[in-house]
Amino acid sequence: MTDPGQDLQAEAGEVKVLAELFHQMADPTRLLLLMSMFSGEKCVCELAEQTDVSVSAVSHQLRSLRTARLVRSRKNGRHVFYMLDDDHVKDLVSKGLEHVRE
Amino acid sequence: MTDPGQDLQAEAGEVKVLAELFHQMADPTRLLLLMSMFSGEKCVCELAEQTDVSVSAVSHQLRSLRTARLVRSRKNGRHVFYMLDDDHVKDLVSKGLEHVRE
Repeated sequence: MTDPGQDLQAEAGEVKVLAELFHQMADPTRLLLLMSMFSGEKCVCELAEQTDVSVSAVSHQLRSLRTARLVRSRKNGRHVFYMLDDDHVKDLVSKGLEHVRE
Repeated sequence: MTDPGQDLQAEAGEVKVLAELFHQMADPTRLLLLMSMFSGEKCVCELAEQTDVSVSAVSHQLRSLRTARLVRSRKNGRHVFYMLDDDHVKDLVSKGLEHVRE
């Protein structure tokens, strides 16, 4: 964790990548997709149903989220399952929501 | 904390506010300002010096950050000091950076 007495230091390149990460999370549909994966991996159809967005729009957003390393995918025969990249993603969304709700 | 076996549920309005919160964090200059406040409150001049951005540009970004409740300010005579709104903001930036660095 960060030393509470020090400013957080980062290189310019890291700050740019971090800004892009938050940019990916700055969209309601992408946030809903991330929230739908809190309980585990989901296929595109399940995600489309849960978020009430078309399958093609969900696929498009999942590609963005995968490029930004917020989600990853796993192939099982003809099906592709999507899941959160790691627990940081869960933490970011839930901490953000805690802040909004306060 | 969130139940690991459940999807994260939120109302449409909350998701929109959350998206706006992340939108504010999706800018390298605003991220640098937040990072500069990790060690405590700073005046506009200190923030301008640390981020190498003009005082007027810093003031503009601080207004955005304050509207989004990411920072708050305190007046002391003729000086205004800015600080992170709460520990959630610190957590969001540092968790994001951990994710980027992995």
